[in-house]
Amino acid sequence: MRHAVIMAGGSGTRLWPMSRTSRPKQLLDLVDDGDGGTRSLLAEAFARVRAVVPADCIWVCTAGRYAEQVRAALPDLAEGRLILEPEPRDTANAVGLAAALVADVDPEAELAVVSADHVIRPVERFAAGLRTAFDALAERPRSLVTLGIPPTYPATGFGYVERGGATAVPGVAEAASFREKPDRATAEQYLASGRHLWNSGMFVWRARTVLDALADHLPATAEGLARVVAAPAGAERDAVLAEVFPRLPKISVDYAVLEPAAAEPGRVLVADLDVDWLDVGSWPALGRVLPSDDAGNAQRGMVVQVDGERNVVVSDDPGHLVATVGLRDCVVVHTRDATLVCPVADAERVKELLEAVAARYPGTFG
Amino acid sequence: MRHAVIMAGGSGTRLWPMSRTSRPKQLLDLVDDGDGGTRSLLAEAFARVRAVVPADCIWVCTAGRYAEQVRAALPDLAEGRLILEPEPRDTANAVGLAAALVADVDPEAELAVVSADHVIRPVERFAAGLRTAFDALAERPRSLVTLGIPPTYPATGFGYVERGGATAVPGVAEAASFREKPDRATAEQYLASGRHLWNSGMFVWRARTVLDALADHLPATAEGLARVVAAPAGAERDAVLAEVFPRLPKISVDYAVLEPAAAEPGRVLVADLDVDWLDVGSWPALGRVLPSDDAGNAQRGMVVQVDGERNVVVSDDPGHLVATVGLRDCVVVHTRDATLVCPVADAERVKELLEAVAARYPGTFG
Repeated sequence: MRHAVIMAGGSGTRLWPMSRTSRPKQLLDLVDDGDGGTRSLLAEAFARVRAVVPADCIWVCTAGRYAEQVRAALPDLAEGRLILEPEPRDTANAVGLAAALVADVDPEAELAVVSADHVIRPVERFAAGLRTAFDALAERPRSLVTLGIPPTYPATGFGYVERGGATAVPGVAEAASFREKPDRATAEQYLASGRHLWNSGMFVWRARTVLDALADHLPATAEGLARVVAAPAGAERDAVLAEVFPRLPKISVDYAVLEPAAAEPGRVLVADLDVDWLDVGSWPALGRVLPSDDAGNAQRGMVVQVDGERNVVVSDDPGHLVATVGLRDCVVVHTRDATLVCPVADAERVKELLEAVAARYPGTFG
Repeated sequence: MRHAVIMAGGSGTRLWPMSRTSRPKQLLDLVDDGDGGTRSLLAEAFARVRAVVPADCIWVCTAGRYAEQVRAALPDLAEGRLILEPEPRDTANAVGLAAALVADVDPEAELAVVSADHVIRPVERFAAGLRTAFDALAERPRSLVTLGIPPTYPATGFGYVERGGATAVPGVAEAASFREKPDRATAEQYLASGRHLWNSGMFVWRARTVLDALADHLPATAEGLARVVAAPAGAERDAVLAEVFPRLPKISVDYAVLEPAAAEPGRVLVADLDVDWLDVGSWPALGRVLPSDDAGNAQRGMVVQVDGERNVVVSDDPGHLVATVGLRDCVVVHTRDATLVCPVADAERVKELLEAVAARYPGTFG
């Protein structure tokens, strides 16, 4: 069967004061639902995956403390499909845990690993790319298929994957090389080459393939995960997980799984995922997906602007008005208990601001 | 007896969103009380006058709709000392009504007319100036004594009064001339002359003098006010006032009382009021009386600023944090239901903004 796991463990602070430690980015109602309302990145990711995978084969992996919020955000998430990490142990362990639990209910499962921290549109092209990746996996069952996005500008903040030899499946190639965040000149070469794709951090593979890779390269992790699934699902398994998981070595799925596999020619594939892939990890970036006016003001909620230009203004508190006059190139975000105001150019300094807030009001606004 | 009436009828919008039609500037807790807390301009005006006049001779004249708020703000305001205008009819009628009611309880009353819309400090020098003005009135009982403030810069937004011949009371002169808002060059001459004082709009005179002036120059007003005080205090008088007051002609005290008197040489006097006289009628002006840091940031309430310069930031909602990073020369004012953000240079455009707000959310945030 085809399964998918949505990785939703992040706890970004760059969208403070909307995002908090207790309410991370993927659970915020940030994006238009196309129906006049808004929904979370997680709900959008779920809807996107559902175009390809049946609802009861969609899993969500998140931090234990977000369990209730995830269940509330995803009413269609099936019983037993919520994977709760007792604490963050990097992506190899999250992906490994998901693979172990999926394989426990379906040993032959084909598993898509997708993320919830970008806006990806349109859903039809996402679905087509994901189906193609599953097709490639049917053709080469032991392969690791990465989803690569055709670049639209010479980004220096993403990793790249290079298309190599063709496969029998159109739109899927063998991966010729990987490259972490390149410099500008290299990024421009990549953009011009037509062979290089942004590495989306999303994959399709058999659950068993991941578990075998961990057994080969991270035996302690593989044994720990085996202990977890050996326990009966429910309280007993949760107890073993709580004991085992925090001791697993922290390592990323790229180092633990992909890099060793890439040493075998033709083992790692890249499937084209021809979508708009929008980072919404900062207020200016999120501004680009909010409704905006002719003066470039992106806004949401109860907002009145007079003579404003290029502002991102959000009132996330029903009934609370944010009003500006003569404001230019600023971010204003109002929430029930905190309001952020900064120039767009300083929006990346929210972390620095949060440190000052924490020093002044410990434990209150993080 | 010496009495004082605090004129507190204003309904400024330039301090929106803190000031509202329902909660005008003089009732906001804007100024430091010198004891770690804040208090309203009205409470400060009451305390200031009390240094000279006994509490049960202090009257407050305000709009009917502010009655409860004024009583709450002034627990020491004596029974029967709250004068409520049924609707605004300009200053001659407000001053006339106060004079009629004061004269009704004390026909020989000496009456100081003071305002509540500036910060005036220190209280000792205010008290000294006011006592001097009362002394001048004792010396010349039919005079109209204006309180004049030595200018500290060539203001073009104030009226000026020129000192003429000396009186028997040191610090009090006959008024030689009045001048409304002068141009810059004239204001600079005035500042250099040492003879010109800012016209504070505060006066000391006998209540009877005002009533006589109205009888001479505005007989309809004088008759109307006589009808009011002819009715027994209480519901009956309130009913007559509600009927009479709205029909009185709108005219300022300057035109109705002072100008005619100034035609008689030596009738209008000017007493020096050597105080700091701070307009707090806009956010940048109010910023100058708020606590500020080395970078020129004025702030009040729960505020954290990183790398801010010359901002005025107010959180008027206990428990709500306003946080800024990299912000320069901006006004940010948070209240429970509305937040204002604008450059300092655009702070005078609040009225324009309020029109846009009223068009979008009629009757909600004014």
